[in-house]
Amino acid sequence: MWGGRFECAPDKLMEDINASIDFDQRLAAQDIRGSQAHCRMLVQQGILKPGEGEQILEGLEKVREEIFSGDFQFRKDLEDIHMNVENRLREIIGEVAGKLHTARSRNDQVATDFKLWTRDAIDQCSSELEKLIRTLIKVAKEHTETILPGFTHLQNAQPVSLAHHLLAYVEMFKRDLSRFQDARNRLNECPLGSAALAGTVYEIDRELTSVALDFDRPTRNSLDSVSDRDFALEFLFCAQSQGLHLSRLAEELVLWSSYQFQFVKLPDNFTTGSSIMPQKKNPDAAELIRAKVGRILASLQSLSFTMKALPLAYSKDMQEDKEVVFDAFDQLMLCVRAMTGMIEGARFQTENMLKSAQVGYPTATDLADYLVEKLAYAFRDAHHVAAKAVALAEQRGCQLEELELSSLQNLEAGIEEDVFSILTLQSSLNRRNSYGGTAPAQVRAQIQLLEKEFAL
Amino acid sequence: MWGGRFECAPDKLMEDINASIDFDQRLAAQDIRGSQAHCRMLVQQGILKPGEGEQILEGLEKVREEIFSGDFQFRKDLEDIHMNVENRLREIIGEVAGKLHTARSRNDQVATDFKLWTRDAIDQCSSELEKLIRTLIKVAKEHTETILPGFTHLQNAQPVSLAHHLLAYVEMFKRDLSRFQDARNRLNECPLGSAALAGTVYEIDRELTSVALDFDRPTRNSLDSVSDRDFALEFLFCAQSQGLHLSRLAEELVLWSSYQFQFVKLPDNFTTGSSIMPQKKNPDAAELIRAKVGRILASLQSLSFTMKALPLAYSKDMQEDKEVVFDAFDQLMLCVRAMTGMIEGARFQTENMLKSAQVGYPTATDLADYLVEKLAYAFRDAHHVAAKAVALAEQRGCQLEELELSSLQNLEAGIEEDVFSILTLQSSLNRRNSYGGTAPAQVRAQIQLLEKEFAL
Amino acid sequence: MWGGRFECAPDKLMEDINASIDFDQRLAAQDIRGSQAHCRMLVQQGILKPGEGEQILEGLEKVREEIFSGDFQFRKDLEDIHMNVENRLREIIGEVAGKLHTARSRNDQVATDFKLWTRDAIDQCSSELEKLIRTLIKVAKEHTETILPGFTHLQNAQPVSLAHHLLAYVEMFKRDLSRFQDARNRLNECPLGSAALAGTVYEIDRELTSVALDFDRPTRNSLDSVSDRDFALEFLFCAQSQGLHLSRLAEELVLWSSYQFQFVKLPDNFTTGSSIMPQKKNPDAAELIRAKVGRILASLQSLSFTMKALPLAYSKDMQEDKEVVFDAFDQLMLCVRAMTGMIEGARFQTENMLKSAQVGYPTATDLADYLVEKLAYAFRDAHHVAAKAVALAEQRGCQLEELELSSLQNLEAGIEEDVFSILTLQSSLNRRNSYGGTAPAQVRAQIQLLEKEFAL
Amino acid sequence: MWGGRFECAPDKLMEDINASIDFDQRLAAQDIRGSQAHCRMLVQQGILKPGEGEQILEGLEKVREEIFSGDFQFRKDLEDIHMNVENRLREIIGEVAGKLHTARSRNDQVATDFKLWTRDAIDQCSSELEKLIRTLIKVAKEHTETILPGFTHLQNAQPVSLAHHLLAYVEMFKRDLSRFQDARNRLNECPLGSAALAGTVYEIDRELTSVALDFDRPTRNSLDSVSDRDFALEFLFCAQSQGLHLSRLAEELVLWSSYQFQFVKLPDNFTTGSSIMPQKKNPDAAELIRAKVGRILASLQSLSFTMKALPLAYSKDMQEDKEVVFDAFDQLMLCVRAMTGMIEGARFQTENMLKSAQVGYPTATDLADYLVEKLAYAFRDAHHVAAKAVALAEQRGCQLEELELSSLQNLEAGIEEDVFSILTLQSSLNRRNSYGGTAPAQVRAQIQLLEKEFAL
Repeated sequence: MWGGRFECAPDKLMEDINASIDFDQRLAAQDIRGSQAHCRMLVQQGILKPGEGEQILEGLEKVREEIFSGDFQFRKDLEDIHMNVENRLREIIGEVAGKLHTARSRNDQVATDFKLWTRDAIDQCSSELEKLIRTLIKVAKEHTETILPGFTHLQNAQPVSLAHHLLAYVEMFKRDLSRFQDARNRLNECPLGSAALAGTVYEIDRELTSVALDFDRPTRNSLDSVSDRDFALEFLFCAQSQGLHLSRLAEELVLWSSYQFQFVKLPDNFTTGSSIMPQKKNPDAAELIRAKVGRILASLQSLSFTMKALPLAYSKDMQEDKEVVFDAFDQLMLCVRAMTGMIEGARFQTENMLKSAQVGYPTATDLADYLVEKLAYAFRDAHHVAAKAVALAEQRGCQLEELELSSLQNLEAGIEEDVFSILTLQSSLNRRNSYGGTAPAQVRAQIQLLEKEFAL
Repeated sequence: MWGGRFECAPDKLMEDINASIDFDQRLAAQDIRGSQAHCRMLVQQGILKPGEGEQILEGLEKVREEIFSGDFQFRKDLEDIHMNVENRLREIIGEVAGKLHTARSRNDQVATDFKLWTRDAIDQCSSELEKLIRTLIKVAKEHTETILPGFTHLQNAQPVSLAHHLLAYVEMFKRDLSRFQDARNRLNECPLGSAALAGTVYEIDRELTSVALDFDRPTRNSLDSVSDRDFALEFLFCAQSQGLHLSRLAEELVLWSSYQFQFVKLPDNFTTGSSIMPQKKNPDAAELIRAKVGRILASLQSLSFTMKALPLAYSKDMQEDKEVVFDAFDQLMLCVRAMTGMIEGARFQTENMLKSAQVGYPTATDLADYLVEKLAYAFRDAHHVAAKAVALAEQRGCQLEELELSSLQNLEAGIEEDVFSILTLQSSLNRRNSYGGTAPAQVRAQIQLLEKEFAL
Repeated sequence: MWGGRFECAPDKLMEDINASIDFDQRLAAQDIRGSQAHCRMLVQQGILKPGEGEQILEGLEKVREEIFSGDFQFRKDLEDIHMNVENRLREIIGEVAGKLHTARSRNDQVATDFKLWTRDAIDQCSSELEKLIRTLIKVAKEHTETILPGFTHLQNAQPVSLAHHLLAYVEMFKRDLSRFQDARNRLNECPLGSAALAGTVYEIDRELTSVALDFDRPTRNSLDSVSDRDFALEFLFCAQSQGLHLSRLAEELVLWSSYQFQFVKLPDNFTTGSSIMPQKKNPDAAELIRAKVGRILASLQSLSFTMKALPLAYSKDMQEDKEVVFDAFDQLMLCVRAMTGMIEGARFQTENMLKSAQVGYPTATDLADYLVEKLAYAFRDAHHVAAKAVALAEQRGCQLEELELSSLQNLEAGIEEDVFSILTLQSSLNRRNSYGGTAPAQVRAQIQLLEKEFAL
Repeated sequence: MWGGRFECAPDKLMEDINASIDFDQRLAAQDIRGSQAHCRMLVQQGILKPGEGEQILEGLEKVREEIFSGDFQFRKDLEDIHMNVENRLREIIGEVAGKLHTARSRNDQVATDFKLWTRDAIDQCSSELEKLIRTLIKVAKEHTETILPGFTHLQNAQPVSLAHHLLAYVEMFKRDLSRFQDARNRLNECPLGSAALAGTVYEIDRELTSVALDFDRPTRNSLDSVSDRDFALEFLFCAQSQGLHLSRLAEELVLWSSYQFQFVKLPDNFTTGSSIMPQKKNPDAAELIRAKVGRILASLQSLSFTMKALPLAYSKDMQEDKEVVFDAFDQLMLCVRAMTGMIEGARFQTENMLKSAQVGYPTATDLADYLVEKLAYAFRDAHHVAAKAVALAEQRGCQLEELELSSLQNLEAGIEEDVFSILTLQSSLNRRNSYGGTAPAQVRAQIQLLEKEFAL
């Protein structure tokens, strides 16, 4: 395809390091779609004759069928998907195939293919993410009154509801969705027709191919078009962002399914056993999600390493863009689906959660608030008194509400019997009724909004 | 502030590892602004008395003045900016200061402060970035006919104009601008009032503080509010994205100012000399931009490492969020300003560019296109003939346009005298007139659009 | 210092981006030591006169005193520590100071200074690491019979001793020590005298300066000498390696100090409270160690980004080497010291550990082994029978040893009364007596070896 | 294998996320070797009967043959290489196969397999690296007098020889070799027999298996044995370290083969052409090396993300260790071989190098040195005079040696005719004769040492 002035064939090793067909065959559908749009435009502009165009379009269809039926023989010596397709086209329709490459180069072709692929990937990621969100909302709805310890520093802090906890992830994943959407909008300019780097001498109509491929508009600068991989980097960041959220939830599933927490039993179909220890049921899927996220993060790093300080326009370094994006997509899809499956199948041990929430004086803040509200304490001072109550309870090995009134009154004479009603977990939960708080009324209101938003 | 039930003071080492005041004092303005909004809301809701509110607001103003006049003594034993401010407030106005912390926690306070700071940072970054874009457009406008070699693989490929080359960066930086804007929109929800993690028992009005602090709305989930650092990660990604573009331009300035290229003389005020070699003028600023971008990229990594697999809600790990964001911002500001300075002061050596563009048969594609257009060649076949012409010229040590007509006709009999008119750089440039191409007409049209967009 | 042919002074911004004195003043001691060695060699070789040498050496001593007494005024316009020192030297001893820079350049000077600094850092890291190792051994020695659950997948797996668990970290940290030592050996070649990049025309004796600065030998290639930062990268990898181990131990301290585990009470002087929740005692130091390790990991990334694809010899990018190394060192020192402090002060809740270890059928493997040993089962089949026993116990809500013999015999008739003696935690621990296993005899033997190794 | 107490089979998705057989089949040879050693030890210790041992050993040989002949059917439902091998063994020899897993777990098995694989990988990397070193030495030997510009900041600095330049890489690669060796030594402890995490109740002899597998000794702590991936991380760092050096050389090949440098013609069999531009010959292999190094760097990041803050002992996250190590190894092997091929086939354009070295006043330092040596200038002052001479030459558009003597004497009256003899490139080269300098005598001495070291 380019060997006109070369004295010898590439070294076998060169083929190994250079050929991308092993992975870029994933672009086959996009490559053919792009070629078809390009061909139609060339005909419309009178650059190809209608008959030539028809031959090419039919040929491309045949190539597509061969590929998707599995009959296609990918050849490493043809380097990449573009040359594999074109070569096969030539075998099928003869020399006229050579006219397809008029007014384009592999540089704009691969940019177009890869953008189309990434756009599809964004759509698939968004769709799977919505499924996870819907699952979380559904499960949350059942648990607006289920109390578990809210943690800070992994220390019991204040009681929260399981619904509230799960909806925190919904907020994260909603941001991820919007991030994917922003990335999609920014990506959606068509590089086709930028040719090698400088544009082309043919009278092409880039608006036409842009529309045909569902882009919003053609790119504005041909040099940028072929040297830009922002869309791939931004996809990787969106994936990493969602991945970080998944990793936090996965970490919690690992913690919660431990014998020390026992907050959840993960479904058998997402856990495994041990080859040596007969009793084991391990949260492998959660652990793998946690780990695979690191791999997604490293993908962004990898492409960043590639693109840093690369002069314009296309450099072969950029061929390393695809494997990391493909892999990040694959891993992310595995992770989001496995997470959805685990959440769907999880059996939350609500009694254990409640029991665990009682430990560690989680209503000490409520005591401080009581002093502020009832006795006009400054919060800082109320905090100090409540801390003394905690120290006392700790010393006696009892809960706050198990202290005698007189003991509390020793700390602050104004405390009365009504204090005990605010020291229960249920009271603590119900009273945190500020906007966005954990009180069931608040959480139910949020669920209603979300159900509308996600058509549940 | 929290020592009520602790038996001993923190270890000196604990103070060293734990205190954040050395760096989070950069949040002083945001911290006070947030406290003022919080205080006004507490008064409006009747949680504080008007008189208390006034005392606190006046006290906060005094603290602000002390800080910005440099009179404030930051204390490490008070850990962070929040406690430093509140403690000083108490010294000034007495015990009533303790009422300010009603219905909030350091967890939502720091989230609010840091979001406000990041929002300001985004605005500053956008503003500096616009300056760079304007500079590039201005310089581009002078160079729509200045020819330099367009490169792929750092090999001369086809002639392009310097304007076209610089505008490729404008496209990149415009994407960066839109990315900053998206990040700003997504960030713009107010976490204040989420308290420690679960909301608060006080009847606060979060809409009020949200509006007062120019947020679009309050956050919807208190657990997410205090455990979310998406805004910081997204800021770092925006910074990294712009950084990658800066690094590519910096790389080109380093290359272009080498003796081998001699495409540009960088201004003396952005270069340095050598302590040993008297003749040196080194592109230090460009090199430092290239390197500092790596540092920005590592900042995103650093915070990703922190956030991965962190259970809800706030963990102390998250205190490591600020230094990386501050540093990335500082480095990015240095980089973008230095780049603007270099572009403004650069003297492009247009004669050298032109001379360099003539090397390496950059119009060979034009010859192939000629065969397609004039003799109805399929492009692939035309490519083959043109490659033979290149081989011939290489063998003779001459340019393509220096070959005799008869030699070309030996390769293809249909080639005529008119071929020579399309083999010049100027013709090659002018004829690449497709949308987004390098032809001066195209580039001028783009400049007009950009001038309108950036009010030039 | 190099302005001879520059038309104008650097831009203020250039000073900001270019000057390194804010951070490289940490090299002051090394810079002066290197200059003194260089000066003595120049005298010995007759390049400087003895009188000149004496003046310079005395002057350098004065500069050193000024710096370490805090009287020295670092000047940003003098860029770096090298020029600050030399400039002050000139102020003190006059023009003869200019002779010091004979036969060297800032390029080999900074390489020498930074290597000396890094070597010192390695020694300090090793020393602190040894303290941590000694602490772990001491604490382990008290706990060879303390049983806690050994985890895989954070699920109770088999009982292990706390000593055994802590000694796992000793193994990791010993590898870290040996890695630091290897890095030190590889680093220990002296670049001084390589000059700017090509060596020097003066008849210097590099062996002399190498010996004076305690290097093993001079570097062999002047280009490599000034463009090499392997030693910094390798230091960062050693730091990251130790950091990863610290992060795992920190993670365990966070888990273990949670209310759900309650395996350890961390000392008050390494924990903190909450501004809102009076009852909180948070494992901040452990969390910060966990997070700071991410920062150390990012430092390696940062310098890797800098060094990738940098052509020879020195480029200004390399100035970004120091801050990341300084920061990684500072963070690592904080982390290792805080970890030592926490381990020293930790109160392990051995009763809770034991209780926790009884949950989850941790001796199921012992049952399988019993079947293999007593009844010649193939292990795979024994595993299957033991799994059925676990299912039965789970169903009955009891421990394995609480099953009736008859129930076990229903699963396998050959099981006899003696099975119960092997189903206890203590038996399980004692019987894992293979080399490196958790049996107290094995662990005590390891402790003896370690006490010898670390002179305890 | 572990399903005894599970209610349902794994989800299809669980199989996809969990099964490692797609990649860990690369451990087949190591897995069988480890099993054979384990089996022989079990027999020797009387845990297996000799007849059982023979059956197992013969069966394992058959499995090996099937795998290496390509007849083996890897099954995803069997998860990993260990279970695939064992399952096939059972098909071949029947139930006795189940006895092989006595006294071991997959946890120590995979640690052993992966260590064996990594050790082999280190040996292969070292061997390929030595080939590259030998190639560099050979090429260097031909070019001890070939002058090219030595660069700092990519600015011509001082003339150096091509040999000197290439040997700088030899120094780097030698450090890489020693790093691989250190990693190998540190890795070389055998984890087999650590069982799941706590050791085993069987009377095994770990010394025996350790020796059989060519390890130096058994690991000392069973918990560490199964949770340690230091060896994988260290391998990745060694690979990254070599990768960084390769990337620098690759960058230079890209620069040097540009039309602006023209220092080298890369061999046709390691370059490619363009689908649109007939004249192109692109340095693809060099670009790909440069890019793939980023991928190797990201591999280290990926595994670091995985291992950070992972509690003991084995967690499933660690299954993500292998793909990154395999990929880094594959990429590194491609890179080092392609680099060796390029260096072997490179045609250095020595005339262009020489011509290029004359530009930019590369002997200005020599002029300064002249003033020091002849006129007892302090170097700093000499530097200033030389800078003025450069400014003068620049103004006149001539080389330093083309200035008239009188012009030089205007700057410093003591300059005499002999100055011109030191202003030539050849003189500059020859006179930099300090140890490690670029003078041919020095470089030849280094080559002699290296030829001895690498048996050339």
